[in-house]
Amino acid sequence: MGLRSFLHRLTAPKIGGMVEARPIKLALVINHSLGMKKGKIAAQVGHASVQTLLSAGSSTPKMVDAWLAQGQKKVCLKGVDEQHLTELQAKARQLKLHTSKTIDAGHTQIPKGSFTVLAIGPSYEDDIDAITGELPLL
Amino acid sequence: MGLRSFLHRLTAPKIGGMVEARPIKLALVINHSLGMKKGKIAAQVGHASVQTLLSAGSSTPKMVDAWLAQGQKKVCLKGVDEQHLTELQAKARQLKLHTSKTIDAGHTQIPKGSFTVLAIGPSYEDDIDAITGELPLL
Repeated sequence: MGLRSFLHRLTAPKIGGMVEARPIKLALVINHSLGMKKGKIAAQVGHASVQTLLSAGSSTPKMVDAWLAQGQKKVCLKGVDEQHLTELQAKARQLKLHTSKTIDAGHTQIPKGSFTVLAIGPSYEDDIDAITGELPLL
Repeated sequence: MGLRSFLHRLTAPKIGGMVEARPIKLALVINHSLGMKKGKIAAQVGHASVQTLLSAGSSTPKMVDAWLAQGQKKVCLKGVDEQHLTELQAKARQLKLHTSKTIDAGHTQIPKGSFTVLAIGPSYEDDIDAITGELPLL
């Protein structure tokens, strides 16, 4: 999605009230089974962060605004494999949390179409911890 | 900067022509001297990517649009230390390339105020390589 369509969606009428004064974060769950090196992981987290800003920026703009104002907290967590990430995404959606799935283009290191990072949020820290609280830090 | 000010700046009059059909990328130079672990590096690259989207999205929106349309290529490179990143930023600015400096809030691992990541771009790959072409991949 380009900036123009992002802009268009941002300027559409918004529904929803104020964001509460509670800590907000973005969780980034990495698919550990792919054996990505640290530079590859960092680039995938960069992709996931940009995707999140674009998609959550239109679906939950007040939450994104509040997250940016709080310093855009991010936490990188270790997920097992694609099935694990898919299960976490389903749970997050049940709780109406924003999610974004990053798929690798396959130019380097890993097969095209690999599910590299699941982003959950930005949303209230305790709501996200209900999904990811058991996962180890990367 | 929140989404509202981003929106305001995006809707300001733009100057400049079309973007050429050449590969575009974002370089992310990591301050290796800080000894950050991979999850910390990934989160800092996430911050740098978001900052870049917000700031370059207003200063060079056509370039950002084209970068997103090409798949938002990112490359993570190993920089030596804060002085090295500062020198690279000065060179990039001389070539009129967009840069963004990520400073850590110091909640974990490293001292508050550490210069963790220098983002250069998004811009044409060969222009960025003129600055970062000698640096090893992270």
